[in-house]
Amino acid sequence: MALLLAYDGTDFHGYQRQSPAYGPAVQGVLEAALQRLCGVVVPTVAAGRTDAGVHAQGQVVTFLPPQPERFTAHDWQRALNALLPEAIAVRSVALVAETVHARFSALARSYRYRVVVTPTRDPLRERFAHRVPLPLDLLAMQAVCAELHGEHDFAAFGRSPSDEPGRPRRHTVRHLTQAQVSEHGDEIWFDFTANAFLTGMVRRMMGTVLLVGAGRMPLTTVAEMLGTSHAGPAAAPARGLCLMRVTFPPGTIAWPAELT
Amino acid sequence: MALLLAYDGTDFHGYQRQSPAYGPAVQGVLEAALQRLCGVVVPTVAAGRTDAGVHAQGQVVTFLPPQPERFTAHDWQRALNALLPEAIAVRSVALVAETVHARFSALARSYRYRVVVTPTRDPLRERFAHRVPLPLDLLAMQAVCAELHGEHDFAAFGRSPSDEPGRPRRHTVRHLTQAQVSEHGDEIWFDFTANAFLTGMVRRMMGTVLLVGAGRMPLTTVAEMLGTSHAGPAAAPARGLCLMRVTFPPGTIAWPAELT
Repeated sequence: MALLLAYDGTDFHGYQRQSPAYGPAVQGVLEAALQRLCGVVVPTVAAGRTDAGVHAQGQVVTFLPPQPERFTAHDWQRALNALLPEAIAVRSVALVAETVHARFSALARSYRYRVVVTPTRDPLRERFAHRVPLPLDLLAMQAVCAELHGEHDFAAFGRSPSDEPGRPRRHTVRHLTQAQVSEHGDEIWFDFTANAFLTGMVRRMMGTVLLVGAGRMPLTTVAEMLGTSHAGPAAAPARGLCLMRVTFPPGTIAWPAELT
Repeated sequence: MALLLAYDGTDFHGYQRQSPAYGPAVQGVLEAALQRLCGVVVPTVAAGRTDAGVHAQGQVVTFLPPQPERFTAHDWQRALNALLPEAIAVRSVALVAETVHARFSALARSYRYRVVVTPTRDPLRERFAHRVPLPLDLLAMQAVCAELHGEHDFAAFGRSPSDEPGRPRRHTVRHLTQAQVSEHGDEIWFDFTANAFLTGMVRRMMGTVLLVGAGRMPLTTVAEMLGTSHAGPAAAPARGLCLMRVTFPPGTIAWPAELT
């Protein structure tokens, strides 16, 4: 069974369940709701392990319910939404083959990073966008995105969850198929799609994009960073980032067209 | 001195300071910051007394600081923003004549009500928009707004803060100079401007608009309600409402053009 999940990540310690000392994680809240519905512990798998404070519009979660036919897909959705807090919503439920795995079956993940360019605080948007007080050089930021586009070793921009000391670097090679900049009023949106992302990769890429956009790093440094394993610039804040969409092979998961 | 104020109203008991039993109000938090800056109690006046949960992008507040020349307008803004919580921001500060009064000098207030039409909960927007699960009849809602447009006795849609028993009804006459509907993707925005609004008036008008839009009230009932004093339909939820702009006579308050 697959869930299309949206959440306001502000008050969660990321998607993945951690030690209770860190505070609630989306996964823990979701699995508690599933356990109440099913009467037993139901382990879940998510397509993207979003960091603390990162939002999702199109997270995909798969699990194997003990009695999948107990409810219709629509009743699963209603029952889960009734148990979940307002900050988490199941947007759709799909019955999928047991072999469909949110993490290993996914072909690509798409993230959007929203930047608001304004000198003053904006309480109506700062929950879901990173505010930058000074003007940014749009052409320079487009050039950074063009550099990042394609297949590279992104070791400078994050670490692989499976990295172990002594292993060759190929574990940090990723294929960025989209790195697009667009203006929307006083906002700039950055859309990134890749087969998979390293931990913290979008936020570190955005840290770099914003440094170049502010004229504080030359564009040539970006090309030098690709392929090295020295950690790049600090990550941009989590609040601007949202997991928009996860792409699966045709025929594996069918969401209603208006939700994707 | 005048402040252009924005706030996320979700966690406040409205703009106006109330008994502490109701929880924090925006006015109380703002006046506490002013008192810390000035060393004395500084009473403030706001152009629109927004209800609990209602947001503002362009609230205007005036006050008479004991030493107005102590800081520049920019330093007043920086100092206040440093003391205010993240949910409240001073977007601009203007030095104005002492005769300028946020409430009595204002010529008009403009509010926007955002409706999201989608069957499932949406954690990324429900803080600032009212969600309606079923399709709405756009033409019928435009017809309601056309009925409401103009000068009417709006007694069925709210009460005048100055109403007293036995007084004639003219205290609930208001002039709605804008009542406009526009589509933005899966959202419908309702923009209302009037010289002044009755308490709860925009939310009660929206309650009516949404009933007609859902086919649960005939359009003819709206015309019958105008001029009567029977309370109309229940108010729509506060979360969708935002005070966008307050208009003053030319030459009284000058905000930077990009903020209005």
